[in-house]
Amino acid sequence: MHYDASLQIILVLPKEQHNVWKKLCREYAFEVEHQLADGGETRFHSVKNGLEFVQEPGLVAVHDGVRPFVSLEVIRRCYDLAAKRKAVIPVVDVFETLRVVTKDGSRTVNRAEYKLVQTPQVFDTELLKQAYRQDFNPLFTDDASVVEAMNIPFFSLKAIGKI
Amino acid sequence: MHYDASLQIILVLPKEQHNVWKKLCREYAFEVEHQLADGGETRFHSVKNGLEFVQEPGLVAVHDGVRPFVSLEVIRRCYDLAAKRKAVIPVVDVFETLRVVTKDGSRTVNRAEYKLVQTPQVFDTELLKQAYRQDFNPLFTDDASVVEAMNIPFFSLKAIGKI
Repeated sequence: MHYDASLQIILVLPKEQHNVWKKLCREYAFEVEHQLADGGETRFHSVKNGLEFVQEPGLVAVHDGVRPFVSLEVIRRCYDLAAKRKAVIPVVDVFETLRVVTKDGSRTVNRAEYKLVQTPQVFDTELLKQAYRQDFNPLFTDDASVVEAMNIPFFSLKAIGKI
Repeated sequence: MHYDASLQIILVLPKEQHNVWKKLCREYAFEVEHQLADGGETRFHSVKNGLEFVQEPGLVAVHDGVRPFVSLEVIRRCYDLAAKRKAVIPVVDVFETLRVVTKDGSRTVNRAEYKLVQTPQVFDTELLKQAYRQDFNPLFTDDASVVEAMNIPFFSLKAIGKI
């Protein structure tokens, strides 16, 4: 169940970008094996499309393409923890001052009580597939929020710190 | 009271970096007029030191050195609004999923209700000087939080959007 460099890779891209991607792969001789899935209207729909390619039980990691500089160490820690915890997300501290919007304007909150969520988010495959069978909700901004919406009492989400 | 490219510039730097800075100015023929103030233990103490160089009434902007790519347009908008509102901070939307730490772990909050605070933060000089006469509080993570702590009822803070 641990991280393995030979894992199956599914790349989710808007359908109209598939040909550009394939051209880039040829141009730069990119030969890492992977499958292409179609992007959807929101992140939720894209992940759902990608999950259809996941058939084996085990762990699945969802990573955002806008975060290309993730370290191997973070990927490994997320996988290793997920093997025990079933659901792991990496988070970082909020370094900027954070304000909450109120009726009258906004006020500063204690940023030490907040975390910004990163990826990869790693889950037990069955758990994540079950979560993505739910109807879409605009508050689903990452995978953890989709899984949490199921309110499974035995579900334990582990947020790992500094990445 | 509006933004003026000929404004007085005060650079707050740890005392032990003053000589390095002066050397860099000579090396790169940096001739924009400015004054040097000593950095303090926290951002609060640094700003307080810098404010001692501000003698004229008017507007004062506090900018973080870690944000060198701020646009002239943002600086101008903050100054122009502050001329009317006395206190203006630029903010941006939270693009990542945001979680609040709870007793049992953490939960996702609606990121649309939160803003990340940027700089320059622009204030009426007297208002800011008065605010910085308060005792230090670890929750003072930016200038707006220092000003807000005074609980002045007529004080109006304007957060400007996308920068």
